[in-house]
Amino acid sequence: MKYRLSAFSIVFFFISLTGNAGGVHPNLFLTPKGVQEIKSSLGKYPLFDKSFNELKALADKALTEKIEVPVPKDGGGGYTHEKHKNNYYEMNAAGTMYQLTGTVKYAEFVRNMLLKYAELYPTLPLHPVIKSEARGKIFWQTLNDAVWLVHTANAYDCVYNFISEKDRNFIEKDLFKPMAEFLSNGNPSNYETFNKMHNHGTWAMSAVGMIGYTMGDKELVAKALYGSNKDGKTGFIRQLDVLFSPDGYFTEGPYYQRYSIWPFMTFAQVIQNQQPELNIFKYRDGILMKAVNTSLQCAYNGEFFYLNDALYKTYQTQEIIYAVDIAYKNNFADKQLLDVARQQGAFIVSDEGLATAKAVYEEKIPKLELKSILLRDGAKGDEGGVGILRSGAGNTQTCLTFKATSHGLSHGHYDKLSIVLYDNGSCILPDYGAVRFLNIEPKDGGGYTKENHTWGSQTIAHNTVTIDGKSDFNGDFKLSSQHHSDLNYFDAGNPAIQVVSAAESNAYKRLKMNRTTAMIMNKAFEYPIVLDINSVKSDSTHQLDFPFYYNGQLVSTDFQYQKNTKELKALGTKNGYQHLWLEATGKTDKPIADFTFVQGNRFYSITTLANPATQFMMTRIGAGDPDFNLRNTPCFMIRQPNATTHTFVSVIEPHGLYDLTREVTENYQSNISNIELLKDDNAFSAVKITVMNGKQFMFITVNSDFDGSKSRTVTVNNQSISFTGNYYFVEIN
Amino acid sequence: MKYRLSAFSIVFFFISLTGNAGGVHPNLFLTPKGVQEIKSSLGKYPLFDKSFNELKALADKALTEKIEVPVPKDGGGGYTHEKHKNNYYEMNAAGTMYQLTGTVKYAEFVRNMLLKYAELYPTLPLHPVIKSEARGKIFWQTLNDAVWLVHTANAYDCVYNFISEKDRNFIEKDLFKPMAEFLSNGNPSNYETFNKMHNHGTWAMSAVGMIGYTMGDKELVAKALYGSNKDGKTGFIRQLDVLFSPDGYFTEGPYYQRYSIWPFMTFAQVIQNQQPELNIFKYRDGILMKAVNTSLQCAYNGEFFYLNDALYKTYQTQEIIYAVDIAYKNNFADKQLLDVARQQGAFIVSDEGLATAKAVYEEKIPKLELKSILLRDGAKGDEGGVGILRSGAGNTQTCLTFKATSHGLSHGHYDKLSIVLYDNGSCILPDYGAVRFLNIEPKDGGGYTKENHTWGSQTIAHNTVTIDGKSDFNGDFKLSSQHHSDLNYFDAGNPAIQVVSAAESNAYKRLKMNRTTAMIMNKAFEYPIVLDINSVKSDSTHQLDFPFYYNGQLVSTDFQYQKNTKELKALGTKNGYQHLWLEATGKTDKPIADFTFVQGNRFYSITTLANPATQFMMTRIGAGDPDFNLRNTPCFMIRQPNATTHTFVSVIEPHGLYDLTREVTENYQSNISNIELLKDDNAFSAVKITVMNGKQFMFITVNSDFDGSKSRTVTVNNQSISFTGNYYFVEIN
Repeated sequence: MKYRLSAFSIVFFFISLTGNAGGVHPNLFLTPKGVQEIKSSLGKYPLFDKSFNELKALADKALTEKIEVPVPKDGGGGYTHEKHKNNYYEMNAAGTMYQLTGTVKYAEFVRNMLLKYAELYPTLPLHPVIKSEARGKIFWQTLNDAVWLVHTANAYDCVYNFISEKDRNFIEKDLFKPMAEFLSNGNPSNYETFNKMHNHGTWAMSAVGMIGYTMGDKELVAKALYGSNKDGKTGFIRQLDVLFSPDGYFTEGPYYQRYSIWPFMTFAQVIQNQQPELNIFKYRDGILMKAVNTSLQCAYNGEFFYLNDALYKTYQTQEIIYAVDIAYKNNFADKQLLDVARQQGAFIVSDEGLATAKAVYEEKIPKLELKSILLRDGAKGDEGGVGILRSGAGNTQTCLTFKATSHGLSHGHYDKLSIVLYDNGSCILPDYGAVRFLNIEPKDGGGYTKENHTWGSQTIAHNTVTIDGKSDFNGDFKLSSQHHSDLNYFDAGNPAIQVVSAAESNAYKRLKMNRTTAMIMNKAFEYPIVLDINSVKSDSTHQLDFPFYYNGQLVSTDFQYQKNTKELKALGTKNGYQHLWLEATGKTDKPIADFTFVQGNRFYSITTLANPATQFMMTRIGAGDPDFNLRNTPCFMIRQPNATTHTFVSVIEPHGLYDLTREVTENYQSNISNIELLKDDNAFSAVKITVMNGKQFMFITVNSDFDGSKSRTVTVNNQSISFTGNYYFVEIN
Repeated sequence: MKYRLSAFSIVFFFISLTGNAGGVHPNLFLTPKGVQEIKSSLGKYPLFDKSFNELKALADKALTEKIEVPVPKDGGGGYTHEKHKNNYYEMNAAGTMYQLTGTVKYAEFVRNMLLKYAELYPTLPLHPVIKSEARGKIFWQTLNDAVWLVHTANAYDCVYNFISEKDRNFIEKDLFKPMAEFLSNGNPSNYETFNKMHNHGTWAMSAVGMIGYTMGDKELVAKALYGSNKDGKTGFIRQLDVLFSPDGYFTEGPYYQRYSIWPFMTFAQVIQNQQPELNIFKYRDGILMKAVNTSLQCAYNGEFFYLNDALYKTYQTQEIIYAVDIAYKNNFADKQLLDVARQQGAFIVSDEGLATAKAVYEEKIPKLELKSILLRDGAKGDEGGVGILRSGAGNTQTCLTFKATSHGLSHGHYDKLSIVLYDNGSCILPDYGAVRFLNIEPKDGGGYTKENHTWGSQTIAHNTVTIDGKSDFNGDFKLSSQHHSDLNYFDAGNPAIQVVSAAESNAYKRLKMNRTTAMIMNKAFEYPIVLDINSVKSDSTHQLDFPFYYNGQLVSTDFQYQKNTKELKALGTKNGYQHLWLEATGKTDKPIADFTFVQGNRFYSITTLANPATQFMMTRIGAGDPDFNLRNTPCFMIRQPNATTHTFVSVIEPHGLYDLTREVTENYQSNISNIELLKDDNAFSAVKITVMNGKQFMFITVNSDFDGSKSRTVTVNNQSISFTGNYYFVEIN
């Protein structure tokens, strides 16, 4: 890890601040030169025109309505909340339109609304809704106040020269300066947020920095960049050092990476415009550009992965439109960004949006290549990571995520070594994500519901092993935050077999979990299959529960099960178990068990190693849910009771075709006839897979001493096998 | 009802049969003239070329593989089933390609495969899978044998002149003639099917008729057209008289209408080619053309309505491609068909397909207009019907179906007066449809599962009232088949308020149900709302259960409920109740109750009249389901215990916006502040709706003496109101 830039840059930034050009307006997003270019480009790029017209329509509508700046009262989704949100969108739209059309009414609108806010603001106590530790004044949490200011600063920048000095003084004195002070130092909680390594801090810094630049207030800018003490120990620059891993991964996960990319990229663009000499987009080997690309990689068909607290979000969100346009404007070489911009079909109405739109129409655009990659976690990249394996291309690509990260701050879940599988255009083995109904006030004010804690973040809610019915670290956030999983190896060099392997030694006392997951593409199978070797080693006996949540409908099992048809009971009373209905239980006397379901037009089989003690449970989410907050996803769960050392070996296999339109069904049965764990010790695990036509495959992984270039020799079934690297895969016959 | 055509046509047909041109090949779908036109058109119409190339690819692939004609063994989805299905598709493709390319290999393929079938066929007993009363020989049910012959007749027609007379004699003697005999007269069950007024009969007649025409066997053709006795009391022509109502509605419902339209239109086209003088498409005022258009009207966004036994099916199915192409070829004036053809983007590779494709490229195409219509049921149109109300246009149209039909033969459900609501692109209040996994062998051989009877067809599975926990007619098929509901009136003349009203007097003894449902579009509401007045009158007390199945997630209720969080029990033990988990129960002390859920990006509120005895139950499908055959749809159920006479009054109201991408929530609350039933007697029901801003609406329906032109006077709240027609609607203030 290279940290040499930081110390250097702090000095450099301070110097440059004193030499800040200042005084030019607009100069946050729009620039005088950009304004001229946009004006002369209208009519040339239909999709940019569309975005322009949408923003203009918003501004025009605003002009026809009475300006309302209500006394803050409601939480997310409620009237005053939505009104103040609309207000900043409208000011931003009107300010931009003033610059691009010269029509004075737009500027008057922004000024008049700002004057109303300037009258209201000094009278405001903390927001009456008490749901957040960091209560705002306009909104129930300071976060939203910061977002308000980010948009409003841009509006103010656009109309700065229009507003009389007297009005400006009033607005700055009674609104912007106190708001900047409130956000950065209004109370201990706000001070903490402003100086915190967290996305809420990013918004606060961006807001304060942007209004600082606009007002020419160097003190505010310095605090935004280097923290309240201006020593660089906190602040925006420090966040760039700490919040992203060297691979551009944001520790809270893709959902919040998407969210925080907005203030990061926005404020960076402002810095670039105000202080181009700082080369902010080159900072830390171009960490922001990496973060944008990593964000795009953390998605399946344009929908972001559900790791940690996450809801449905796609490339179509405003924040990703901002991220892509700004990234492209600052790195014309990255043409794949244009593929995303083209999918978005919308642009920022700014210099960046125009540059991107122009390129979408005029450049040759390569497809965004979604690759198998390892995203290391932690500022230094040494706190585990997320492995992403992909096979095939386009909308039906098979994609697996393997999470072996640090906790992920307050939005992290207790799901060490959990996997998620996508295939054929949809999520097959899902992660529940967050339990939240964003902006729906009757649903816990639009915030996280209590089930987000009792269910969503618990280990049993994820496709990984829960020990003794307790979550990782017994659900202790502080403890979990002190540890991270360890990556054993990640090897996606061969498209025919890609492997990710990781271990977790801290989540449970005196117990080690080791999981190796391979995506295998071979002509013996119609689609890529996943081989999953998931072991638990301890010196005492434990109950191991290993669930596969699935989207789809059960087709068949090769084991007997008894379904509870008249009465259902919750599987347990705590740690997430209270949210599972036990629908059925089963056992098998065969060495493997098969569970096949259908989703979309494809079948999926989970074939897993079993022994006489293995219990199968079919569960469904929905128990312990008094307010109907949960979705009722079904689950195939494997329970190994009284295990000291146990290794789950499973193959997840997409197969066949279920075409209801043409009424064609093909290959509804698994092609796996046997799975054998031939060796399983601290050094190696060896698995043999036999398919229906008798063909056999052997996969060996090393379990220690990881080194991709090392020579190994291992004896399996009295046969000596030598190979180089961390794994070995061979077609036996 | 006009039946005069029938008698006339029988005589006419007999005469014409003796004068049948005969001898020309091909002359089923392809004609010598059509073949020349297709050849010279290739390359001109890309979508037709695509269909041509797909069919050619199928034929070419077939040529590379060994011909296999296995001894029949498996049920739907199994190997021999799928193989024989592929075989007829391949013969059909190869035969067509022989005609269109002249390449002899295609013809050889068809001949060689037919020779194999001719060797096998005489050796076949009835199919070993015993699941159908009408077991086939090649497939588990004769239906599939008939479908095989429809396709194969076309293939044979294409290569007829290529095959030597000796081979033809062998194939006809050992395969086609015995198969035609088997299908029409092989055993009592087949004889019955062949002469039955049912879609299985249509397939059998079409198959026998098509092979009859091809072989020049006038006897077979006569039997196909006029039944085994050639007296016109059964047969294809009689089916045209009986199976469709005067509105072109097929009594089994849209799913089977779609299915049966294929042999109807296919065989009609064959008749048109072979005996154009019969004008089959003009028969009974063009009943087949009506049936095609009615079929298209029975869909939402191209997906067919779920009435009776129904699975997911769309305009994209092969049968609708056939129906549309054949209909257009025989009625160039119906340009709306081209809108569907364009959506399908695929064509029959035949004269009809070419004509339609050509028009798609060369004609001006109007949008298919999906209208509010009444589809009367019964051959004479006097056995009730389905009312379809639509409001708005395009993909987000609001659409309600109201079912008040006869039973619907063996695929009918016990759901008198049930409704289904679509809005904003998806189904909001669904009908479960059929419980079946078509062609998935492990799921009951791909046939209807037992839950289709125990759940899918029961009254409680539908959005209508169940009395005393028993299905209509106590689930007695024979009894139900003797009756039908009665339409009171249907009035969609005013787009601002469209009404359908019907009554059911036979489903339960000494009890009458009367339901009037109005779709109202008014600026007081963002979207069309549905006002539903659903009354039960009896002389004894009953338990009334009125469920609203919904797709979506509960947002809020304005009444208290207790959810069962640790244990669930089935709601009952029979008549479908054994399949419902009771999730929660509630009561209210207010005169109305509100139940709001979110689906897609819109909220929906059901606001319903309540009294202190009213019980609310939230249930979920899934109990009593040992094989995981059911989907777990939730339900809001209103129970009125100990009711003699009771009227449910509800408003179903789409509202607001839930945009997760832009993070915008609007109007998540119902706009209804009160509902009052001001009058409710045998003559009139009057309902007053009050919305949040105080505006009030009054709706009055007549409950007897239905006449759209009659003058009425009614006193409501001491005020005398006069109006003309069956209903009255006014904005009070």
